[in-house]
Amino acid sequence: MKRIETRAITVGNVQIGRQDKVIIQSMTNTRTKDVPATVEQIHKLEEAGCEIIRVAILDMEDAHAVSEIKKQIHIPLVCDIHFNPDLAIASIKAGTDKIRLNPGNIENEDKIKEIVNLCKERKVPIRIGINAGSLNKKYEHSEENMIASARDHLKILEELDFHDICLSFKSSDPLECIKAYRLASETFPYPLHLGVTEAGGVLNSAIKSSLALGNLLLDGIGDTIRISVSDDPVEEIKVAKKLLRACGIRKDVPNLISCPTCGRIQYDMLPITKQMEAYLENVNKDITVAIMGCPVNGPLEAKRADIGIAGGKDSAILFKKGEIVETIPQDKIMETLIHEIEKF
Amino acid sequence: MKRIETRAITVGNVQIGRQDKVIIQSMTNTRTKDVPATVEQIHKLEEAGCEIIRVAILDMEDAHAVSEIKKQIHIPLVCDIHFNPDLAIASIKAGTDKIRLNPGNIENEDKIKEIVNLCKERKVPIRIGINAGSLNKKYEHSEENMIASARDHLKILEELDFHDICLSFKSSDPLECIKAYRLASETFPYPLHLGVTEAGGVLNSAIKSSLALGNLLLDGIGDTIRISVSDDPVEEIKVAKKLLRACGIRKDVPNLISCPTCGRIQYDMLPITKQMEAYLENVNKDITVAIMGCPVNGPLEAKRADIGIAGGKDSAILFKKGEIVETIPQDKIMETLIHEIEKF
Repeated sequence: MKRIETRAITVGNVQIGRQDKVIIQSMTNTRTKDVPATVEQIHKLEEAGCEIIRVAILDMEDAHAVSEIKKQIHIPLVCDIHFNPDLAIASIKAGTDKIRLNPGNIENEDKIKEIVNLCKERKVPIRIGINAGSLNKKYEHSEENMIASARDHLKILEELDFHDICLSFKSSDPLECIKAYRLASETFPYPLHLGVTEAGGVLNSAIKSSLALGNLLLDGIGDTIRISVSDDPVEEIKVAKKLLRACGIRKDVPNLISCPTCGRIQYDMLPITKQMEAYLENVNKDITVAIMGCPVNGPLEAKRADIGIAGGKDSAILFKKGEIVETIPQDKIMETLIHEIEKF
Repeated sequence: MKRIETRAITVGNVQIGRQDKVIIQSMTNTRTKDVPATVEQIHKLEEAGCEIIRVAILDMEDAHAVSEIKKQIHIPLVCDIHFNPDLAIASIKAGTDKIRLNPGNIENEDKIKEIVNLCKERKVPIRIGINAGSLNKKYEHSEENMIASARDHLKILEELDFHDICLSFKSSDPLECIKAYRLASETFPYPLHLGVTEAGGVLNSAIKSSLALGNLLLDGIGDTIRISVSDDPVEEIKVAKKLLRACGIRKDVPNLISCPTCGRIQYDMLPITKQMEAYLENVNKDITVAIMGCPVNGPLEAKRADIGIAGGKDSAILFKKGEIVETIPQDKIMETLIHEIEKF
């Protein structure tokens, strides 16, 4: 899946842009100054597959916590700063790998220069995050004005010869996201961080994000993504990985195919589907697993699955790439599948 | 949201095609012959918003149950038949509103003629369902061959001057669905029933279906949809409604926007978000409700929400269209919101 070429930026040791890979991000919901809690959450996110993590910097205590957090984590850290340039300066000095800051919101020109100089010196990129809900008051609400607002912020950085930039154009409306990011992709050379914001809980966000981000990703737009979820941020990573897999952008995420429930199913398939989905959350392999409802059509219908089972009235059959391998008892389905997935 | 013009068909009292509305379907997972269980499930699906229901017809007992089921339900019924023409004939005589049947799979020409004549007489449309996993063996697996296979089946019906047809091109691979349906939309005048099949549990299916169906729907392709879920079919309806709302195709579904969790949130927002999402499942209004994390940015960021709250440390504020209405105690958030939604 080819991506539209953008400039590359480097956040810590992670490249964003100018590659076919799409980087998965999330954000902590701990108090950043609570270092043990923040580090613990980041570790869980790393384990789930998060590649860059953002923390909110609300005060100097948060900014100073960054250096200690950085020592204990293994992925690049982004500091999210609103309005206060001193928090940006402190975060950069504390070792952040990237900042999210809209320079147009900082009135003190000297402070902007100081931030940009520090960013240049330490190779810290800046993300300008345009949010449809908080556009500068001079602009009426529209996608075109989201682009115009980005241009205002960009001008400040570009005039200081700073180009180590990433852009985002989030909205809570998936259709607005699609339009804004398409315009941005035509307008700017910078890599794009995709997200539908304020998208609700896991399921609501999965629907809105898959609709909007999926639409963009399939056209090669987007270099990094965040699925915003009102829940444990680990859920954001799970949805992001599944979406990138469904888009054909990532391969190291298992794919489960399973029959919809229908009157043809001959055994209690749902508990097995749920157990298998839970098990696959922690598998990082390019494997397609099928849980099929009937032994007659199952193996053929799921012939592209690497491994699958189709339950019958008393027993189940195990198949690989559509070929039946063996008949197994119903109560051995999970353990047989896990064994096969482990050795795959 | 304009849809690509297709021929209209009428299933019972429900039109599919040649309109901007996209019809939501589901399928029962009861034994069809178990009339009380099937009717009970259909009633739940009707209540959730299902507009057409499909049942599997595995034998004559199932086919004969159709007339009794029809008496007790309020939405059109589709009978799903594989291979056996007598089951199709019995289902039509029992009063089904539509059949899903691939005529190329029936070898007896007289039986096909009998089915088509009965369908003409009783104005029963036929859905030809091409499934990537069970393509006719003469075809290698490809989207083009899914179209070719549809053409084979169609030819049989068209030669009998039957055009009361709907088509589907399901695959477990969302990208294959997108390609096949796009080709179909360019090729055939018939309305299209969209679905990603064998899509897994609720979350997996929501991601794959929103990616594929969303991509098609936003380009005006698709007249009716099913979200295939390995779970309670009521979940299929919930996802379908949310997706159609997110696509701007349906308005009578509430929209929840809520902050992603981040370090800025000043109160325990998640339980309220979850309660509100659950409450909104049963509301059929064009309303956007916002649950925001901080009282400073919340009302502005969610200014397009009809009603919203933003929680602070001790109290919360209620706002409408970005204007603060009143300050309320934390423990009155849910009851205040529900009161406002009821009178909206």
